[in-house]
Amino acid sequence: MTNQLDSFFGAMSDPTRRAVIERLASGPASVSDLHAPHKMALPTFMRHLRVLEDTGIVRSIKKGRVRTCQLDPAPLIEVQGWLAWQRQIWETRLDRLEALTTQIAQNEEDT
Amino acid sequence: MTNQLDSFFGAMSDPTRRAVIERLASGPASVSDLHAPHKMALPTFMRHLRVLEDTGIVRSIKKGRVRTCQLDPAPLIEVQGWLAWQRQIWETRLDRLEALTTQIAQNEEDT
Repeated sequence: MTNQLDSFFGAMSDPTRRAVIERLASGPASVSDLHAPHKMALPTFMRHLRVLEDTGIVRSIKKGRVRTCQLDPAPLIEVQGWLAWQRQIWETRLDRLEALTTQIAQNEEDT
Repeated sequence: MTNQLDSFFGAMSDPTRRAVIERLASGPASVSDLHAPHKMALPTFMRHLRVLEDTGIVRSIKKGRVRTCQLDPAPLIEVQGWLAWQRQIWETRLDRLEALTTQIAQNEEDT
């Protein structure tokens, strides 16, 4: 889990790689279609794709001369879970603080 | 937005920094309390804290000799939004594919 979060967050920290994810969310695409909007050499772009494949969020299949990539949302769902968990702990704490503040104010009114 | 996502995802790609976030989700803590569970020199740990502060997810206040850190969940909520958006595009696409498959099957039955 730690390694998966490390590599997912690392992969998502780059705008080119996030653009690839945004593109693949709408459906599979060939490497050349994915590369087209990016002003960088193909080998550089391929290194970004490799990072995404290593994370498991992108899978690719080669058929003839065309390599097609598609999204595997499993790591994305796992990371969403981690973030939601942190937020829930935080919000539970805020709710407790609010309840405590209300209680203190109530006690002051009563005395 | 791009810079915020870059720095947030970069900050979260390290297990020490995620452990700090997990700790701060339960409430504010001093730098020495945050540092205690980590087997690393204080200056190294402070560099991790600095990365979190630069992202805006951690804020700190110094009072006397004690620096207290607390979580600011705004960047976390923004990133959750980005991830949820990607997932929604993906799931909408799957729903459309499923509807299309059902329609094709129906058409084949009808002919």
